[in-house]
Amino acid sequence: MPAAFRTTRMIEFSDTDMAGIVHFARFFCFMESAEHAFLRSLGLSVALEWEGESIGFPRVNATCQYLRPVRFEDTLTTVVHVAKLGRSSITYRFECLCNEQLAAQGEITAVCCRLNGGPGLEKREIPEGIRALLKQGHP
Amino acid sequence: MPAAFRTTRMIEFSDTDMAGIVHFARFFCFMESAEHAFLRSLGLSVALEWEGESIGFPRVNATCQYLRPVRFEDTLTTVVHVAKLGRSSITYRFECLCNEQLAAQGEITAVCCRLNGGPGLEKREIPEGIRALLKQGHP
Amino acid sequence: MPAAFRTTRMIEFSDTDMAGIVHFARFFCFMESAEHAFLRSLGLSVALEWEGESIGFPRVNATCQYLRPVRFEDTLTTVVHVAKLGRSSITYRFECLCNEQLAAQGEITAVCCRLNGGPGLEKREIPEGIRALLKQGHP
Amino acid sequence: MPAAFRTTRMIEFSDTDMAGIVHFARFFCFMESAEHAFLRSLGLSVALEWEGESIGFPRVNATCQYLRPVRFEDTLTTVVHVAKLGRSSITYRFECLCNEQLAAQGEITAVCCRLNGGPGLEKREIPEGIRALLKQGHP
Repeated sequence: MPAAFRTTRMIEFSDTDMAGIVHFARFFCFMESAEHAFLRSLGLSVALEWEGESIGFPRVNATCQYLRPVRFEDTLTTVVHVAKLGRSSITYRFECLCNEQLAAQGEITAVCCRLNGGPGLEKREIPEGIRALLKQGHP
Repeated sequence: MPAAFRTTRMIEFSDTDMAGIVHFARFFCFMESAEHAFLRSLGLSVALEWEGESIGFPRVNATCQYLRPVRFEDTLTTVVHVAKLGRSSITYRFECLCNEQLAAQGEITAVCCRLNGGPGLEKREIPEGIRALLKQGHP
Repeated sequence: MPAAFRTTRMIEFSDTDMAGIVHFARFFCFMESAEHAFLRSLGLSVALEWEGESIGFPRVNATCQYLRPVRFEDTLTTVVHVAKLGRSSITYRFECLCNEQLAAQGEITAVCCRLNGGPGLEKREIPEGIRALLKQGHP
Repeated sequence: MPAAFRTTRMIEFSDTDMAGIVHFARFFCFMESAEHAFLRSLGLSVALEWEGESIGFPRVNATCQYLRPVRFEDTLTTVVHVAKLGRSSITYRFECLCNEQLAAQGEITAVCCRLNGGPGLEKREIPEGIRALLKQGHP
């Protein structure tokens, strides 16, 4: 079982709101950014060409639980797990740690789609080569 | 049973991302904004003085399912329900409609807290007067 | 001389930062949103087809002066003027009013470009039909 | 004359808009974030206690010129200069470089204020100790 992927960022002023803490919606950007860093670590990207087709991973579900407030200039470490790898979909689980305590945790489910240039998105199986790479991050 | 509260906005350019659609994290801001409009419609606010105490409603949980992409200059109608009214917590359910079709749906759970001016938040019961008003939006 | 175009919005929680006021970068989104509302009022859009060509208006310059802080649930009125209409460029001037006092003022300059589908942007003259409509908003 | 301060970030998906490039308002967040990193490098912060007083630096002016589009996963280096150090105000100049080419440049002017806890901001001179540190970044 591979070690989980983790990435770190410092909270910026524009991440905060008038309650003096990180706005709750920002955690979804932090999780997405960690997902993309994880994909880069595997040589993948969130929008890529694969055997002549444009493939993307639009999200169909996102959840977050908030355990502790996070503040300006805090260092946030986000741990990325592949929680579930389906035929077409992938569910990531994230843990956001601040001062070695769990501050938030969440999940994002994305579906592999053909991007046809037009407005439409068409679901397809995750290509085997991509699946093999993602399994590296899957316990 | 009261009619559900609903509010409408037009999607702005800065709501979109390079996929040409509204960024998934923005829906949490749309849902929060609809919650605040609902509270205003009851004469309440998300941060208020109540019988000499400062009271706030920090979020502990947020979820969203994405059913259809929403685009620049689309009109988005968000319907707000009070899904669950606990002793200290309130769970809102939201439906985001675009062109009369469900584009996204989600929930936000917030907990009533004393705001002591310091960094700490202390859970407390929802005051009876506020509870009575919230029940107006509760089937 | 036509009346200036004006549009109104209510400040949202996610517009604020830990200083308890609207984050300074958000005013650029408010000005852009007012620009787009102005274009819609003329039957135009920021990204449009014109005589078989895709035309866009990427920004080359943006400025804002901040005179008074604006807060959550304040109503902000933004007035839009066409300050300068060049061969290829258009400069908008904006005034953001809160409680009938000037809170911020700024300018955005955008350049008319052919959008070729690729990464490149190619400057072109503003089409005469668009220029005629924009002059309606030009003293 | 000291070397200019510089800091680097990778462009995130949520920084982009439907034009496929970084939204122009985001550059103001990037410049602010670079300003804060510069202040941290001097042992300062944007909101600090100084000889028993709370001091902050609200912005009064911000400008940006856009020279080249910046895209998802580009690495952006922001160089920070202290362009002008007045009695109460400080003007930063920023250069944002991508692939060793200037992508954007701008200025932010902030004014030293007493933060009295209330809604009011009261201008004051920049304390001598802070001024001495800032001069380290001032040609």
